Amino acid sequence: MADRDDIKLDYSNCLNEVLGKHDKEQGIFFEELKTLEDKLVSAHNSVTEKKAGGNLGFMELPYKIPDAKKIKEIARRTCGGYENFVVIGIGGSALGNIALQQSLNHPQWNLLGKKSTGNRVSRKGWLRLFVPDNVDPELIAGLLDAIDLKKTLVNVISKSGTTAECLANFFVIRDKLIKRVGFKKYPKHIIITTDKEKGFLRELVNKGEAIASFEIPRNVGGRFSVLSPVGLVSAAFTGIDIEKLLTGAARMADRCSAAMEPAASRTAGADHSGASSYNNPALVYAAVQWLLYQKGKRINVMMPYSNALYGIADWFRQLWAESLGKKLNNSGEVVNIGPTPVKAVGATDQHSQAQLYIEGPFDKVITFLSSEKYRASVKIPSVKIPTDGKKHYLGGHTLNELIKSEESATRLALTKQGRPNCTIAMKEINEDTVGQLIYMLELATAYAGELFNINAFDQPGVELGKQLTYALLGRPGYEEKKKELEEEMSRQKERHVV
Amino acid sequence: MADRDDIKLDYSNCLNEVLGKHDKEQGIFFEELKTLEDKLVSAHNSVTEKKAGGNLGFMELPYKIPDAKKIKEIARRTCGGYENFVVIGIGGSALGNIALQQSLNHPQWNLLGKKSTGNRVSRKGWLRLFVPDNVDPELIAGLLDAIDLKKTLVNVISKSGTTAECLANFFVIRDKLIKRVGFKKYPKHIIITTDKEKGFLRELVNKGEAIASFEIPRNVGGRFSVLSPVGLVSAAFTGIDIEKLLTGAARMADRCSAAMEPAASRTAGADHSGASSYNNPALVYAAVQWLLYQKGKRINVMMPYSNALYGIADWFRQLWAESLGKKLNNSGEVVNIGPTPVKAVGATDQHSQAQLYIEGPFDKVITFLSSEKYRASVKIPSVKIPTDGKKHYLGGHTLNELIKSEESATRLALTKQGRPNCTIAMKEINEDTVGQLIYMLELATAYAGELFNINAFDQPGVELGKQLTYALLGRPGYEEKKKELEEEMSRQKERHVV
Repeated sequence: MADRDDIKLDYSNCLNEVLGKHDKEQGIFFEELKTLEDKLVSAHNSVTEKKAGGNLGFMELPYKIPDAKKIKEIARRTCGGYENFVVIGIGGSALGNIALQQSLNHPQWNLLGKKSTGNRVSRKGWLRLFVPDNVDPELIAGLLDAIDLKKTLVNVISKSGTTAECLANFFVIRDKLIKRVGFKKYPKHIIITTDKEKGFLRELVNKGEAIASFEIPRNVGGRFSVLSPVGLVSAAFTGIDIEKLLTGAARMADRCSAAMEPAASRTAGADHSGASSYNNPALVYAAVQWLLYQKGKRINVMMPYSNALYGIADWFRQLWAESLGKKLNNSGEVVNIGPTPVKAVGATDQHSQAQLYIEGPFDKVITFLSSEKYRASVKIPSVKIPTDGKKHYLGGHTLNELIKSEESATRLALTKQGRPNCTIAMKEINEDTVGQLIYMLELATAYAGELFNINAFDQPGVELGKQLTYALLGRPGYEEKKKELEEEMSRQKERHVV
Repeated sequence: MADRDDIKLDYSNCLNEVLGKHDKEQGIFFEELKTLEDKLVSAHNSVTEKKAGGNLGFMELPYKIPDAKKIKEIARRTCGGYENFVVIGIGGSALGNIALQQSLNHPQWNLLGKKSTGNRVSRKGWLRLFVPDNVDPELIAGLLDAIDLKKTLVNVISKSGTTAECLANFFVIRDKLIKRVGFKKYPKHIIITTDKEKGFLRELVNKGEAIASFEIPRNVGGRFSVLSPVGLVSAAFTGIDIEKLLTGAARMADRCSAAMEPAASRTAGADHSGASSYNNPALVYAAVQWLLYQKGKRINVMMPYSNALYGIADWFRQLWAESLGKKLNNSGEVVNIGPTPVKAVGATDQHSQAQLYIEGPFDKVITFLSSEKYRASVKIPSVKIPTDGKKHYLGGHTLNELIKSEESATRLALTKQGRPNCTIAMKEINEDTVGQLIYMLELATAYAGELFNINAFDQPGVELGKQLTYALLGRPGYEEKKKELEEEMSRQKERHVV
C-alpha cells in the first residue's frame, strides 16, 4: 500500500471548528462528516459494484503493466528516427497528455537539445511534444511552420474514431505528410490510438496506414483515459516512466480499497483527530466537496503551488465539470447540478485572484495542490540596498522557502477570513506520486457522482452542439437539423448589438 | 472614431426575449436595461470625473504616442545584440505581456529562427520572449537551463520596486548574469520598469545598473498597466507595433466618450433594436454583467474561439476579479461581492466544460471572444472512407469553417438551454483591434466598479497574505506578526488528515 506520507489530504480548514464563525458558519462541522458514514459506505459499495460489473474500466488500468512495458519498448525502439511527437486529440485525448508532460518533464522541454553537448540539460534522446488540441487554423498552420514533418511522429487519438476536431486536424497533417515523405513512407509517421475494432481510424490501421496502433478499452471514458494508451504513449516517447505511473496508481487504488478503516485499527486513527475511521482520501475528498456544495460553495478552485502541476488542475477541470455537471439525477429529475472547477496557480494567482478569494462572495472552496519538495533548489543571493548599504531581507533565503511561505500565508489568510480550503500534499512530484494523484482524483470523481446522485460517466449535454455543428457543415443525415437551424437563426435577425 | 465593425458587442442572448423561459427567466429584460439609463449615465460621469481628477491614469495611456515611439526606437536599436527577452514581473506586470505576445505573434514564436533561411517563417530579427511569472524554483532553474544569459535582456518590472517575487527572481538572475558576463557588462542586460523616483529598483537605475529604464505613471494601477511601458517594452522587443496598439485604444476611448448616443442620432439606432440609445460597448458590457450578477450569474466565463486570445482571457481574469471582488462597498458596508471570472477556450473546452455550462446550475454568463477572420486559412483535404469508398464529410471544408460552425453551434446550444451569453466580435486580430479590446475591457471594469458601488482600484484583501509571508521569512519589522502566526499555527496542531 502507498505510504500515507506520499500524498496527504488535509481538510482541517474546511471545518467550522477551525474556520470559526463569519457572519454565519462557512464550513462543515466534523460531526456532519461523521454522520455521513453510511452514505459514504454506500457510495463506495456502488462504485465497487460498477467496477465488478465491468463498467469502470479506469479502475483496471493501473494493473495493465504488460501493456505499459510494450509501449515503453516501442517508444525506445522507435524514437531514434524522429525529433517531434504530435498528439492529435482533444478533451480527454489531450488534457492528460499535457498534464503528464508538464508535471514530469523539464519546463522548457521543447527548447532543449535532443542530446547533451557538454553539461547542458537535454532531452536524453526523447522527442519534443506538441499537443495542438484545437481546430484553430492559426494554431495548426503555426505548428506546421515550426516543425519538419519528416522528423515527426503523429499520434492520432480518438476512441470513437469520429471526433470531428481530431479527424480534421489529422486530414490536414496527413496530406502534408504525404506531400513531404510520399504515400509509401507516410505510415511510418502515424500512430493510431482508438477502439479495438470499430471506427474510421481502426479501418486506416487495417489498411496499413500506421506504424503502430493502440487500443482504448471500451469501458474507459475519455476523461478517465489518461492511464490508458491515450496518455501513456506520448508520455513514453518523452521519456516518462509509465510503469511507475501505473504502479503509483495501483498503490492509491489499494489505499482506497475500503470505504473506512477496519474497526480493528481504528485506535491508531488515520484521521489525526482520532475521532473517525476515515482513511480513504478519494472518498473524503468527494465527501468534503459534496458537503460544501450543499452550503453554497459552488466553485472548486484547484490551486497548485507549482507550475508543473498546473496541467493536472486543467485535466481535473474536465474530469470534475463533465462528470458532475448534469441536468438530470439518477431518478430522472431535473436538478441542474454541478460544481464549477477553476484552475489557478500559486504564487502567481495571489496577484490576480487572491483578492476575490479572500474578500468576495463565500462561494468557493480552494484545493491547494502542494509538493513538499521541489526538484530544484534556488538560492536568493544577498544584494545590498544602494541607499543604506543594508542587505535586502530576501537575500540568503531560497525561492523554495519563499514560495512555501507564500503558500502557508495564503492558506492562513483564507482560513482567517472563513474561506474553506483543503490541501492535497505530495511528498515530491514524480511518476509514482503523479500516478497516485491522478487515480485519487478519478476515484473521487466517481464517488462524488454517487453523492450527487448523478451519472458521472455520460455527457448528454454536448450532443446538441455536435449535431448543430454537423448541420452547419452539411453532413449527410443532418438536413432536417439544418433547416430547423436556419429557421431559428432567421427568427433571431433582430439583434442587440453595440 | 473606431469603425463600429472593428469590434461589436452582441448581447441579444442575454435577453429573456431571446432566451425564452426555462423554469424561470434566466436572463434580463430589455426593459430593465432601458430603465438603467440614469444609473449608467451617472457611472459614466463618475468615471469621467475620476479621470479629470487625475486618478485614472490608464485612460491617459492611449495618447502617449511619443513614449511608444521612443520605446520602439530603443527596441529596434538594441535587439540586434540579443536572442532572448525575459520579463521578471508578476500579476499586472506579466499577464498583459503574455496576452500581447499570444494574441499578436506566431504561436510557436520561441521555436522560430531569429532570421529567415529560405522560405521559413522567422522572428524577423526580434527576440524570443519568456515570462517566468512565479517563484517556483523549478520554473526559474528550468529557464536558466534553456537560455544563455549572455544573449539575454532582462526586463525587471515592479511599480513599487518592492514586489517580493519580482525581486527574488531578479536577485537570482542578476547573480547568474554577473557570473556569466562580469559586473561591468552586466547592466547591458538589464532594463528596469518602475516608479519615476521611488523604490529599490529606481535606486539601481540611478547607480547605473541598467541599460535602459522606463517609468510607470503613479496613477496607473498594476492590472491597468498593459498599455504603459509595463506591457509595451516587451511587446516592442518582439516586433509588435505598439503605436498601433495605442491608436486602437484611443479609437475605442473615443467611441466610449459618452454614456449614450446623442439624442440627435438616435433614430439611426446604434443598438440594432432601434429601441435605445446605447452605443458605448464598455458601458453596455458592464451593465449587462452587473444585471446578470443580480440574477445569480456569479460566474463570468470568457471563452475566446481562438488560442491567440486565451492570454487576453487570463489577463481579464485579474482585471475583473481583483477590481470587483471586494468585502466593503463605497459606504463601508460589508458586501462580500464580486463575479468570478473564468477562462476557457473554444472549440477545445467544448470537450471539457460545455457539459457543465449547458446542463449545470444557472450560475454563469458566457462571454464569447470571436474573430471574424483568422490569420491563416487551412483546407481540410478530401479523404476516402476505406470501407465504403465514400468521401468523408469534413473534406473540402476548412478548419476556419469548422471552428466557426462550432462557435455558432455552441452559442445556439447555450441559448436554447436558457444560458445567457454575449459575444465580443472582432473583425480580425491585429494591433489595432487588440488595443481597442483591451481598452474596452479596462473601461468596462471601471464602469462595473461604479455599478457594484465598490472601489475598483484597490486590493486590500491581499495585504494580510503579504504580511504573513514577510513574517514567515523573518523580514525586519514583522517580528510581532511572526509570533502571532506561530501561536496560531500551534493552536491548530490537531489536524484532520487522511
